Amino acid sequence: MRKIYYGYDTFRQDLKILVQKIDREFDTILAIARGGLSIAHMLGEYYNIRAVYAINTIGYEDTQKLQNVTVFNVPDLHRSKHVLIVDDIVDSGDTIVEVLKVLKQMYPQTNFYIASLFYKKSAKIAPDWYVKDAEDWVSFFWTVDLLGE
Amino acid sequence: MRKIYYGYDTFRQDLKILVQKIDREFDTILAIARGGLSIAHMLGEYYNIRAVYAINTIGYEDTQKLQNVTVFNVPDLHRSKHVLIVDDIVDSGDTIVEVLKVLKQMYPQTNFYIASLFYKKSAKIAPDWYVKDAEDWVSFFWTVDLLGE
Repeated sequence: MRKIYYGYDTFRQDLKILVQKIDREFDTILAIARGGLSIAHMLGEYYNIRAVYAINTIGYEDTQKLQNVTVFNVPDLHRSKHVLIVDDIVDSGDTIVEVLKVLKQMYPQTNFYIASLFYKKSAKIAPDWYVKDAEDWVSFFWTVDLLGE
Repeated sequence: MRKIYYGYDTFRQDLKILVQKIDREFDTILAIARGGLSIAHMLGEYYNIRAVYAINTIGYEDTQKLQNVTVFNVPDLHRSKHVLIVDDIVDSGDTIVEVLKVLKQMYPQTNFYIASLFYKKSAKIAPDWYVKDAEDWVSFFWTVDLLGE
């Protein structure tokens, strides 16, 4: 698999494409940490939404070697009617599926939408909006930019 | 007051300075949303810390025209011993003071440190580490970069 560097300028361009695609109103932005944090920050500013929250997940293999995801730090969404969940990449889809399951259980009246930069066609769930197909290994700037000289 | 554009490249350089200054160990990074989200994301990756959380605040004037800050979406910090709180700027200090008050009340055994990019000397509280004095009005890239052409 090719490894591509995903720099800030590309990120900015892709977010501009993403906001062109997003054709629903929402009152809350929910970042899946860590991958969705920078996206949520930029979109919160762009849409002038102060309700920018984060949610955490841990993925691990159980004894049957199945991928399990635990969701924690669920924010208070009682005043949220339409929530845009953001992540960098929808890969297997395991994380998003579990996050949605937990959120819909806790907030059955709330609408949830999903936006991501990358989407792998083999994922269990498709985001409502995304920018690029995930065909390569993506080295995001937030992962590598502080490591170099 | 001068208005300066604070672009991603400057942000990256300043974060490299910040991590050189930070001389304490911590196990958790807590972003004050929205301003601290991108910082928390980059630092979480740099330090390889998955416990990157967010906390929300709302500032408002009360009937006496005093600035009040309400803190909400406090994450679960029961397993956190040393928490690095991050924000873009410590200006009046009102937000940080209130966040610290709430956190210390809920988690009296936990150590809290504060890191920011900017610090205004007139603030009620100083961050443990910061990079630049806030003398101008700062237009952060996350606020303005999606608005241009």
